Amino acid sequence: MDTTNEGDNTWSAYDIVGHLIHGEKTDWITRAKIILGNSPNKEFEAFDRFAQYENSRGKTLNQLLDDFESLRAENLKELKSFNITNKDLFLEGIHPHLGKITLKHVLSTWVAHDLGHIAQISRVIAKQYKSEVGPWLEYITILQS
Amino acid sequence: MDTTNEGDNTWSAYDIVGHLIHGEKTDWITRAKIILGNSPNKEFEAFDRFAQYENSRGKTLNQLLDDFESLRAENLKELKSFNITNKDLFLEGIHPHLGKITLKHVLSTWVAHDLGHIAQISRVIAKQYKSEVGPWLEYITILQS
Repeated sequence: MDTTNEGDNTWSAYDIVGHLIHGEKTDWITRAKIILGNSPNKEFEAFDRFAQYENSRGKTLNQLLDDFESLRAENLKELKSFNITNKDLFLEGIHPHLGKITLKHVLSTWVAHDLGHIAQISRVIAKQYKSEVGPWLEYITILQS
Repeated sequence: MDTTNEGDNTWSAYDIVGHLIHGEKTDWITRAKIILGNSPNKEFEAFDRFAQYENSRGKTLNQLLDDFESLRAENLKELKSFNITNKDLFLEGIHPHLGKITLKHVLSTWVAHDLGHIAQISRVIAKQYKSEVGPWLEYITILQS
């Protein structure tokens, strides 16, 4: 099930896609624009890690996936349009908890964050096969996490 | 880098795709056919977890991905052609180490095994950003594994 999670306070695949959508809307590109922009205020807004519970309401997983796909495509197009130079990568913004953050940190974390959630989605879905794999359980380490 | 791994005796994305290819060639469908076939010999051959080192030699990652894509497509077509019934799912084969294995175990493990390796590929690639994400390192748990 797309909405099965790993227990209390964990996320389902559905929750994670909603979270990724919120990142496309408010995190990576928004922060890159603050860093690259002309305003002297370089402070990022705090990212809402729970926004998806409200924003995804009433949508199917397929709708969320479509939303994510188009938001990501737009954001990659916008990223390209910035024509970022090597020097730009060391420009800074201020994260509300982490302090000084460079553009390089933002863009690298965008990638690593994706990969972390792909691994998480794989694990959440894999675990739903835990009682189906029989004696193979001992070989499939993802089912033991 | 596609060939960067997580240290001694670990696999890179390139190694993993080679391993998945070997699974398509010798594991899941091959074993399903032993279970469903007419031969009284229901023993599976041991799976070679290191075959990719020899078999992938000289191939690019893109070639391996193409190979995997076409092998998987063929295998799913073949799987569909078996017209497996609910009763068939409980037919058995003999795994060289694990003993009695049902068709349901084989098919479920095929899925869970994929997901485990998708998580692994995500982790292996994510870790290559470990020194690039700056202060975000503490938030991206996949980088701490």
